[in-house]
Amino acid sequence: MQSKRWLLPEGVQEMVPPESWRLEAARRELLDLYWRWGFDLIRPPLIEYLDSLFTGAGHELDLQTFKLTDQLNGRMMGVRSDMTTQATRIDAHRLAARGPARYCYIGSILRTRPEEPGGSRSPLQVGAEKFGDAHIDSDLEIVSLMLETLTLMGVDNACLDLGHVAIYRRLVAIAGIDANLEPLLFDIVQRKSRPDLDALATDGRLDAGSHARFARLIELNGPPAVLTAAREALAGVDDAIDAALACLDDMIGLLARHYPEVPVYLDLAELRGYRYKTGLLYAAFAPGLGRELARGGRYDDVGASFGRPRPATGFSADLNLLAALGRFDCATRGGGIEAPAGSDPELLACVRRLRAAGERVVVATPGAAESGENGCDRRLEHVDGRWQVRPH
Amino acid sequence: MQSKRWLLPEGVQEMVPPESWRLEAARRELLDLYWRWGFDLIRPPLIEYLDSLFTGAGHELDLQTFKLTDQLNGRMMGVRSDMTTQATRIDAHRLAARGPARYCYIGSILRTRPEEPGGSRSPLQVGAEKFGDAHIDSDLEIVSLMLETLTLMGVDNACLDLGHVAIYRRLVAIAGIDANLEPLLFDIVQRKSRPDLDALATDGRLDAGSHARFARLIELNGPPAVLTAAREALAGVDDAIDAALACLDDMIGLLARHYPEVPVYLDLAELRGYRYKTGLLYAAFAPGLGRELARGGRYDDVGASFGRPRPATGFSADLNLLAALGRFDCATRGGGIEAPAGSDPELLACVRRLRAAGERVVVATPGAAESGENGCDRRLEHVDGRWQVRPH
Repeated sequence: MQSKRWLLPEGVQEMVPPESWRLEAARRELLDLYWRWGFDLIRPPLIEYLDSLFTGAGHELDLQTFKLTDQLNGRMMGVRSDMTTQATRIDAHRLAARGPARYCYIGSILRTRPEEPGGSRSPLQVGAEKFGDAHIDSDLEIVSLMLETLTLMGVDNACLDLGHVAIYRRLVAIAGIDANLEPLLFDIVQRKSRPDLDALATDGRLDAGSHARFARLIELNGPPAVLTAAREALAGVDDAIDAALACLDDMIGLLARHYPEVPVYLDLAELRGYRYKTGLLYAAFAPGLGRELARGGRYDDVGASFGRPRPATGFSADLNLLAALGRFDCATRGGGIEAPAGSDPELLACVRRLRAAGERVVVATPGAAESGENGCDRRLEHVDGRWQVRPH
Repeated sequence: MQSKRWLLPEGVQEMVPPESWRLEAARRELLDLYWRWGFDLIRPPLIEYLDSLFTGAGHELDLQTFKLTDQLNGRMMGVRSDMTTQATRIDAHRLAARGPARYCYIGSILRTRPEEPGGSRSPLQVGAEKFGDAHIDSDLEIVSLMLETLTLMGVDNACLDLGHVAIYRRLVAIAGIDANLEPLLFDIVQRKSRPDLDALATDGRLDAGSHARFARLIELNGPPAVLTAAREALAGVDDAIDAALACLDDMIGLLARHYPEVPVYLDLAELRGYRYKTGLLYAAFAPGLGRELARGGRYDDVGASFGRPRPATGFSADLNLLAALGRFDCATRGGGIEAPAGSDPELLACVRRLRAAGERVVVATPGAAESGENGCDRRLEHVDGRWQVRPH
């Protein structure tokens, strides 16, 4: 019972060696990768006022955000549960680049509840966002960086899921679905539940044509060939839907040229982040793991809420999860030299010199047996009148 | 008025390039330094249950800790406002090394209020703790690492303040001060207020002998010679006080041999973290800056609260503050190669090769003028039938 006092909250992790050093190495390699791609590092704050955190993302983030009272003025703050809107605020107000801007970030976020059973409530979010360009090349740049992230982390056989929010959004508009019914329909489409969809038609809440189109929509998932079926089912219904299908077609073509080895799937009913996303959606999975490893999409309207309309697209992932699932390998921080404690100036100089040369030197604790646990494979000994490194 | 919506809470920072990259470089160099000294990286969780966060530290941390309700079970959690007790819990339960253990950490903490006016409420705490040894050599090891941290961060002319909680603590016991009066006396001693101290004696709440000793205590600050005055004022009063003075004498001697260039001051009324500290206290200042840059001390009793009595000593600092005040210099992440967008396999291979070689390659956004802002000093051009890097 006593030991239960030290249990961590569900979905909250801590990390100890050697895993902590491996994560540090992964962090460094990922940020260096992003830098080589031209993405500049930003460090958004851990807490912000709620109106600033939720701007643009609607209140999609509300339920998953921990709230705090600012004791200095009584205003409500939140611990960030996502860094995308923070990046948008920084792009709009803090940095305000005229041309395209590329940012990357890494940091802890908190969620009131895990996104799936057994999931984390304190992910180490890492991601990249590109602002200022609506062209599909920018989506490709982000999807590419997402795939490079997985490769660097040693995640094998990642595959890509593509979607587009405009198709469902336009079908809802065409069907004349009101704001009360829409969340129910959204839930049904997410669950791909044909019986529940049929019930909406039977109740007269969905006309026959719309019912048929939503029924097709929830079936439209699978390899790129699904796009042909999508065109047959939805061609000519709406210009924006045609444009979304063309956009998916373009992305499939670009990915085939840039990443021919990556399997691509379409899922036109997958709508993660739907409330503030505006275009292409992408997510990475690894077969067998059955979990989403990274995701992102286009969110052109968020900047406008911050007073600066800018096209935007970005991805994010939980580095704790990638490190746990990937084979990422780094030089182990092993070995070292055990030195005796003491104030002999020659000893101190020698220890200083060895450390400056990059060696790990553990100064022994007098009276304590260090050797078993400090990982040293050599020791500093005074032999023949001088300090020398000897095998342990 | 509109722009005020995006103001950050007081004492909450965000960071953008190039400062964000400089901080990242500082982080890497510091963690590598700690590793070379034999300190192993731990990553304590951002949130814990309150009983676990506050164990051992009494409720010293209570007022400065943001509270959250765990929606999964209704229990109260806190966002860490310090990582020392977290390290103690990890040493006691998670890692449980038999011999001495050395840990380092870096991460954001939150405080409900800044520690001083204009101070941070979201420091990036970096620190090191050593468990399992009560010898002064371990205090020296931690103080040394604290000084090396400042040197690495380019803080010039740091000086050290030494104190020891046992002196005040024993004087309180000898004076028979009860728990109701003690906080008032503590506050008076912290403010070094002689008039308020005299008032306690006048009111009869402090006997004449104790009044004289506390009056001396608040004057006992200055260079190491103060120790002689302290001995004259307090010698023979109490064994534990004699031991504390001897401990300070030893540390002054060790520092003179190891860091002869560092000015050392004593302040026997300085009692930061008094409630859970048990021995030597140390803090680093830089003259002219007028701010404490790092601090630490011995807290041998905290482990016992976690069911594992272990001597412990450690220090911590705010890396955001050190980076802002220090001259720490890193290789700037500048320059780069602008590449055109496109799917030409030779172009893609060339970009991939350059990045693998460590080059920063920004793929231009079609139709957008990148050059002004992306920092590139070269460009990839197709000349004489192949892709070549040319000056911009």
